Amino acid sequence: MNARHQRYKPLHLHEVAPRDGFQNEAAFVDTDAKIALIDALSACGYAKIEVTSFTSPKAIPALRDAEAVMHGIARVPGVVYTALVPNVRGAERALSCGVDEVNLVMSASDSHNRANLRMTREQSFAQLREVIDAVRGTGIAINVSLSTAMGCPMEGDVPAETVLAWMQRFADLGVHGFTLCDTTGMAFPSQVRDLCERARARFGALPLTLHFHNTRGMALANTLAALDAGIDRFDASLGGLGGCPYAPGATGNACTEELVHMLELDGYDTGVDLAAVLAAAARLPALIGHDVPSQLLKAGRRSDLHRPPAEASAAPRVVVDGART
Amino acid sequence: MNARHQRYKPLHLHEVAPRDGFQNEAAFVDTDAKIALIDALSACGYAKIEVTSFTSPKAIPALRDAEAVMHGIARVPGVVYTALVPNVRGAERALSCGVDEVNLVMSASDSHNRANLRMTREQSFAQLREVIDAVRGTGIAINVSLSTAMGCPMEGDVPAETVLAWMQRFADLGVHGFTLCDTTGMAFPSQVRDLCERARARFGALPLTLHFHNTRGMALANTLAALDAGIDRFDASLGGLGGCPYAPGATGNACTEELVHMLELDGYDTGVDLAAVLAAAARLPALIGHDVPSQLLKAGRRSDLHRPPAEASAAPRVVVDGART
Repeated sequence: MNARHQRYKPLHLHEVAPRDGFQNEAAFVDTDAKIALIDALSACGYAKIEVTSFTSPKAIPALRDAEAVMHGIARVPGVVYTALVPNVRGAERALSCGVDEVNLVMSASDSHNRANLRMTREQSFAQLREVIDAVRGTGIAINVSLSTAMGCPMEGDVPAETVLAWMQRFADLGVHGFTLCDTTGMAFPSQVRDLCERARARFGALPLTLHFHNTRGMALANTLAALDAGIDRFDASLGGLGGCPYAPGATGNACTEELVHMLELDGYDTGVDLAAVLAAAARLPALIGHDVPSQLLKAGRRSDLHRPPAEASAAPRVVVDGART
Repeated sequence: MNARHQRYKPLHLHEVAPRDGFQNEAAFVDTDAKIALIDALSACGYAKIEVTSFTSPKAIPALRDAEAVMHGIARVPGVVYTALVPNVRGAERALSCGVDEVNLVMSASDSHNRANLRMTREQSFAQLREVIDAVRGTGIAINVSLSTAMGCPMEGDVPAETVLAWMQRFADLGVHGFTLCDTTGMAFPSQVRDLCERARARFGALPLTLHFHNTRGMALANTLAALDAGIDRFDASLGGLGGCPYAPGATGNACTEELVHMLELDGYDTGVDLAAVLAAAARLPALIGHDVPSQLLKAGRRSDLHRPPAEASAAPRVVVDGART
């Protein structure tokens, strides 16, 4: 019997659209709209919400209102409000807003780290060590996200041992959790299972989150593989919002409502209210000015039934003497 | 150790775009273009290609050239060329063209059968029994596809026992294989695993194909679940072509190139040449006049690497002091 047959295993869902999603939007989403969306998300049952990023406003103008958003939201007890922090300055800003957690990021592959952060991995590690030193002792949790942990768009394969070695260096500094990020949708199921098993075997005491992108359609399949390996924490993005500069036109992050829909059908307790999430996702196109990748938003839930054509006011297309499979 | 860790397990891939895909297109695809596409697909390594449907030209005008297409293609030895056949008249037409297999279709749920075929399931069964009687003894294989086998858009759940009971009635008539179709993308992984295990336990001697739609994003996840249950035959559609009248705007069939891409990464031998499939998929938008759902076509294969920004002529967007995960 495999892990997926265990009904009601409680999972922890993390919403990243306000950060990983909005960060990729060309048009600025109004601060009040961001706050209203996050407040709606706070009522959905997530374990964690990534609210914003305390980066330079010049680097990511889409999130230049980090303080205002963080101060403006109505925080719900039990939900962890986290924010991305690139350096000590960002950490100070985040702490001044009372975040529950800082999320530190570097890439597992050198080429991506240079392209994304304009530093070598050693330089990034040194900078993040300063952040850890500054935050340690404040009571604020420190999570480390490793980008390109399952493949680098410039280097290809990233050896699991490389990922585990970077995790070890951060574990030695006393961080509280890890997120392994499939930044450009290169992960595949057997690889995910292997990496997750090895990471859990070595760092089982630290919460491990998997962050998938659906760039090549594998986000939900990879989620099944991670569940097989005992993973119980997943990042996902409302509407599937988010993107990847190396795959123009491709879809982005794993879509929250599609993930929750599948997991609940499979008997898992995600803690998340799917109807509330779908209602929030339905507001996104108006907010960002374009369609979102979510297929569930178009198709509706499995349980949203249609009336037979005879009863329906607008009958679906019927094929006489034909057949659809 | 689970089934997915067995490397090089040979799988059988069936291409259904020429039938299940084109059937849904509003604009008629020129007969010569259909033939050229199928000839390209014949060189890709599929086990089976569903060429067309011998239905009434009035019912499905998109496939009104069934005979011309079937006669026009250059058949490659080893590839099974199958066609959908709704009744004895269709079977006679298909046999006159020398198909290798006739594919008979009815729905596992009554509401869908009435909506799709304008008959009760008993009426469909009686009609298909006539086809089986007519084809039996010709040496031509008979496959039965059960639509809505994992959910009906009007009735919701379709009990596995109902599906198995219809399979039993057709098995008793001596058919050679079954396809279980998730017609509107309602299947979910644990359900797929359960249904496939039960079907294999009862009809293990007959080849069993799974036909998924990606309407709610689960096609690849459901494929993993089917593999877990020992399934080794899958329908898929080039470019993800195909649709569902009950989910306007939603994507359709499982996308061949995404399925093959994932399966080959996971160590399976699909027999299919992914590069050749991608080249064929790339021709679809010009052929049908619109974009296709395939994400792999946009994102490229996992192995299609990008040059680092410093070397690249068109540098990807770089976020200084930011971070993408």
